[in-house]
Amino acid sequence: MPVAAKEIRLAERPRGWPTDETFAFAEVELPAPGPGEVLVRNTFMSVDPYMRGRMNDVKSYTPPYELGKALEGGAIGEVVESGVDGVSPGELVLHGLGWRSHTLTKQFTRLTPIEGVSPSHFLGALGMPALTAYVGLLDIAALKPGETVFVSGAAGAVGSLAGQIAKLKGAGRVIGSAGSADKVAHLTGKLGFDAAFNYRDGNVTELLTAAAPDGIDVYFDNVGGDHLEAAIWAMNDYGRVAACGSISGYNEEKRPPGPRNMFQVVTKRLTVRGFIILDHGDRFRAMIDEVGAWLAGGELVAEETFVDGLENAPAAFLGMLRGENTGKMVVRL
Amino acid sequence: MPVAAKEIRLAERPRGWPTDETFAFAEVELPAPGPGEVLVRNTFMSVDPYMRGRMNDVKSYTPPYELGKALEGGAIGEVVESGVDGVSPGELVLHGLGWRSHTLTKQFTRLTPIEGVSPSHFLGALGMPALTAYVGLLDIAALKPGETVFVSGAAGAVGSLAGQIAKLKGAGRVIGSAGSADKVAHLTGKLGFDAAFNYRDGNVTELLTAAAPDGIDVYFDNVGGDHLEAAIWAMNDYGRVAACGSISGYNEEKRPPGPRNMFQVVTKRLTVRGFIILDHGDRFRAMIDEVGAWLAGGELVAEETFVDGLENAPAAFLGMLRGENTGKMVVRL
Repeated sequence: MPVAAKEIRLAERPRGWPTDETFAFAEVELPAPGPGEVLVRNTFMSVDPYMRGRMNDVKSYTPPYELGKALEGGAIGEVVESGVDGVSPGELVLHGLGWRSHTLTKQFTRLTPIEGVSPSHFLGALGMPALTAYVGLLDIAALKPGETVFVSGAAGAVGSLAGQIAKLKGAGRVIGSAGSADKVAHLTGKLGFDAAFNYRDGNVTELLTAAAPDGIDVYFDNVGGDHLEAAIWAMNDYGRVAACGSISGYNEEKRPPGPRNMFQVVTKRLTVRGFIILDHGDRFRAMIDEVGAWLAGGELVAEETFVDGLENAPAAFLGMLRGENTGKMVVRL
Repeated sequence: MPVAAKEIRLAERPRGWPTDETFAFAEVELPAPGPGEVLVRNTFMSVDPYMRGRMNDVKSYTPPYELGKALEGGAIGEVVESGVDGVSPGELVLHGLGWRSHTLTKQFTRLTPIEGVSPSHFLGALGMPALTAYVGLLDIAALKPGETVFVSGAAGAVGSLAGQIAKLKGAGRVIGSAGSADKVAHLTGKLGFDAAFNYRDGNVTELLTAAAPDGIDVYFDNVGGDHLEAAIWAMNDYGRVAACGSISGYNEEKRPPGPRNMFQVVTKRLTVRGFIILDHGDRFRAMIDEVGAWLAGGELVAEETFVDGLENAPAAFLGMLRGENTGKMVVRL
């Protein structure tokens, strides 16, 4: 049966921060699913920093969003009608065509609900953010027990998991940065960080040095810019940077200055390694097993900030870029 | 028998470029060698970029030179008098106490002269510069056959070897940058580089992009600064930077700006890895075997620029920093 679906399209490529003009709302009629397809009523959708990059008309690891077409991103929903043998209406699935009330797709992952765990966590603590934190720390930065870890954007979806996974994997000391006193208190009070600071309180290098008087061994970089420069100053010999993102520059029209201390990469024998989680799907199973056990056992705190309604998804996206969320920002549909 | 020896001391820590005031000449009387010691008459000494760093009073991978004491560095000489069983006068040795006419030391490496090869090569094509090029390409950047390699400072001691070793190890295309038209002609004409450019001719990013229209996979960085930024722009996905030095900034009082495109380290999954050759002594034997065979077989061109006389060592050092040498700068004593 055809369904009247709502979707949010890219109306205009933003320069700098996205505005109301960036987004357009539209209604489309979706047909009944053909063979191999499912029609999904979406219940949760993700807003993530990488989406800002896809709004630019720049070749990158994912193609840019197309002007006038619906945006895309991780979403979870219930199958309404199925053209796939063995998949029944009511089943929970994960797919990559969010920013819409309903999705017609052939590409989806069937999810097994976990008792007592909100399905929305498949967008966060059991989803891409968790895999990003897990792979970044363990594979890219090769964290060793006893080491000191610094996580920027530590109250965000990836950062809050990275800090906790570091502790659970035996890091000696975990330090986080965030953009408000409340978040800082939250990191040390509830998430088990050993130290944290508000990067708006002063010079990041000085704040980090005070929090890590013996230096850091691993830096999980969500931010770039002055945070990366500060981390390089604070790095011990043979330190590693897992370069995951640089949210500080995503909305800047003029590129922020780069780290002025790259020579320390040589003198301290540092490794700065970038990664994109799409390359690491083979680690998904291991992550789900390990993080799922921590989550079920209450050893890991998985926070979510919910915004209700598809019409509020642009505001949720901007709020996430401004750092208004604690933990994973999720739009509840 | 005591020997009247000449040495060059650090008279003053330079700010910016070293000057005549940086160096002081002195005469000292060296006693006969005690047990375990040899007295060496130095015949060749090395001047290297890292020495500029040791003139600063800054903790790094080697301790700073001490004010009022003789400088140090790689040197080769003949044993004059020996306190070591089995080491005879006339024997050729390598040690780390250059910048002097004679050296009294317990720490030295016995060298086996190679027929038809100048012993000075143990400071260059068979010494630390060669090990640096070899380890940087093969271990740090993990060069694979067919890849495109960019080498900065390509006419220098390390760079000229890095480019040639890359070709000998199967690189598909090797591009070099240098600071004069003569050097550029030399790279493509004599050293077998596929392309080269003079970085003084314009914007390094544009020059590199023109020389590497299909991008680069490996960057051997001797220079830092705008070369590193240009290399990051030109990098293909999964590219690697072997960060060996950043000579562009060694004499700058104000630190040059860092690469403004570090976000590409994430999007292209790049690895930037610094290294210090002191950590890689275990690869010396393999390098000597492989590079020695290329050198003996005439497959590798090992150039040297000689400056004569200890009194001219400061000028040789400054000339090397300004890029006046082609290949390894050596002071002949």
